[in-house]
Amino acid sequence: MIDAALLGTGGMMPLPDRFLTSLLLRYNGGLILIDCGECTQVTLKSLGWGIKNINTILITHYHGDHVAGLPGILLAIGNSGRKEELEIAGPEGLAEVYGGLRVIFPELPFPVKLRELKELSTEKTVSFKSGDLKINALKLDHRIICCGYSIELERKGKFDTEKAAANNVPMKIWGKLQKYDTFEYDGKIYTSDMVLGKPRKGLKLTYCTDTRPTAEMCDFAKHSDLFICEGMYGENEKLEKATEKKHMIFSEAAEIAKKAEVEELWLTHFSPALKDPKSFLENAVRIFPNTLIGETRKTKTLLFKE
Amino acid sequence: MIDAALLGTGGMMPLPDRFLTSLLLRYNGGLILIDCGECTQVTLKSLGWGIKNINTILITHYHGDHVAGLPGILLAIGNSGRKEELEIAGPEGLAEVYGGLRVIFPELPFPVKLRELKELSTEKTVSFKSGDLKINALKLDHRIICCGYSIELERKGKFDTEKAAANNVPMKIWGKLQKYDTFEYDGKIYTSDMVLGKPRKGLKLTYCTDTRPTAEMCDFAKHSDLFICEGMYGENEKLEKATEKKHMIFSEAAEIAKKAEVEELWLTHFSPALKDPKSFLENAVRIFPNTLIGETRKTKTLLFKE
Repeated sequence: MIDAALLGTGGMMPLPDRFLTSLLLRYNGGLILIDCGECTQVTLKSLGWGIKNINTILITHYHGDHVAGLPGILLAIGNSGRKEELEIAGPEGLAEVYGGLRVIFPELPFPVKLRELKELSTEKTVSFKSGDLKINALKLDHRIICCGYSIELERKGKFDTEKAAANNVPMKIWGKLQKYDTFEYDGKIYTSDMVLGKPRKGLKLTYCTDTRPTAEMCDFAKHSDLFICEGMYGENEKLEKATEKKHMIFSEAAEIAKKAEVEELWLTHFSPALKDPKSFLENAVRIFPNTLIGETRKTKTLLFKE
Repeated sequence: MIDAALLGTGGMMPLPDRFLTSLLLRYNGGLILIDCGECTQVTLKSLGWGIKNINTILITHYHGDHVAGLPGILLAIGNSGRKEELEIAGPEGLAEVYGGLRVIFPELPFPVKLRELKELSTEKTVSFKSGDLKINALKLDHRIICCGYSIELERKGKFDTEKAAANNVPMKIWGKLQKYDTFEYDGKIYTSDMVLGKPRKGLKLTYCTDTRPTAEMCDFAKHSDLFICEGMYGENEKLEKATEKKHMIFSEAAEIAKKAEVEELWLTHFSPALKDPKSFLENAVRIFPNTLIGETRKTKTLLFKE
């Protein structure tokens, strides 16, 4: 299972009653943080999932409201006693931004590995791993280079006794092949597909903020258990403004959720001028019924379907 | 009169119930901000004194908890519509720190002037002006170069009719010489000291955080109407820790307040481990009775004495 917690729902700037949009994922004891605007470390503390085990930080883009909290987060992780490497991934420019911000944290007690997603200058998506989780990045359409992320946990097929027998797999290593992709026994290499049925649907969470709708987003978010998407403005009348600022209105996010056939949509990254996002929820719900308004510390546990 | 508002009282890191130490001063419509750790812009908004009129930002030193909020503050000031120049002053290293942080705010709609207080590498203090206010910086004793600030508003002497008459100042320009230092009339230059008594006590506020006590601090804070001073630890037993970390305990701050003969002392910059600063107030009060525990959005108006 993967736990997801929204750490804030604002865009542009942190407000006394609304911190900036950011997401924390918890899987198997490890944490992945997506974006860290100013004050993100404060909600992280309120949430109480810890901070030391943040193994990966994914940055969508380098506007201050998505990255200005990075020095504070890294210093806080350092204070928590972390010694293990931490990976930071983000679109092109990561080394420059990280290098600039380092002026206020010249030393950390753990190594940092930067993964600059340069592939996105030529490719539409790029994938890499954070432990067992597969992370995919998609180039979005914002004022500066920006990417969305989807996080996937694969699920192997069911164990198939008949298949195992048909493939002459010794019973002694049936258990091993449910755990490992390959296993050597008695001088012969066996593979897990000799004992397992076809892979089952795993878990998928997709996170896209700071973009206009793009055709690729539908494929990228396809069949997500949870799709967290920006809705900078609630009103349909703000389409022109959203287009100009390279953001989205609620109904556009809902259209993508519908086309991508996701299970659930959370709207977030609200404009400071959008005081009561719930009053515009209907604009999304009439297109994609299972839409919820994001809230600070809103959590969800994604579970394998039986 | 000068209004002062403490924007937070924490040291090291912002906490859900305690933001980082920072001070806002308001005089004659303009604002001066001392330090801006992460989340300072949030309390600035809660306070409601505005943000556009911040003309000067004084940075004590370049630890993240005192400067990481600078990009957010500057972006917020930009969003407020400011076009006029803003001055940022701080000890040596300012240009490098500002240059580094700029990676996340490459453009601002107003010019920024940096005043790097290089004089502090050879001099103990340096002074400059922000409008009518005189700002003095003192080199403190911290792990990295750090300075305290005192802000002074001078007060001219009382108008003295006899003196004006004795100096043959035409009655027509008596008013002008109460406003301007010099005034030309009928081909002759008159000076304000020809009509005014000796300068009266003005207003003075001193702000020192992140330091061990130094002998110079007593002179620097001398006769302040308000002395805002760090008290990282409340317990007298934490003197050794304070010495090692280059911070102070409450009683040390109180000793300085007493020697400096200030009117009022506010303690701030509490360690995250110091949950209830008030429970140690007695350690300061028995040395300097008019000591108060700093609180977020604690304000005071400094007035000329009649």
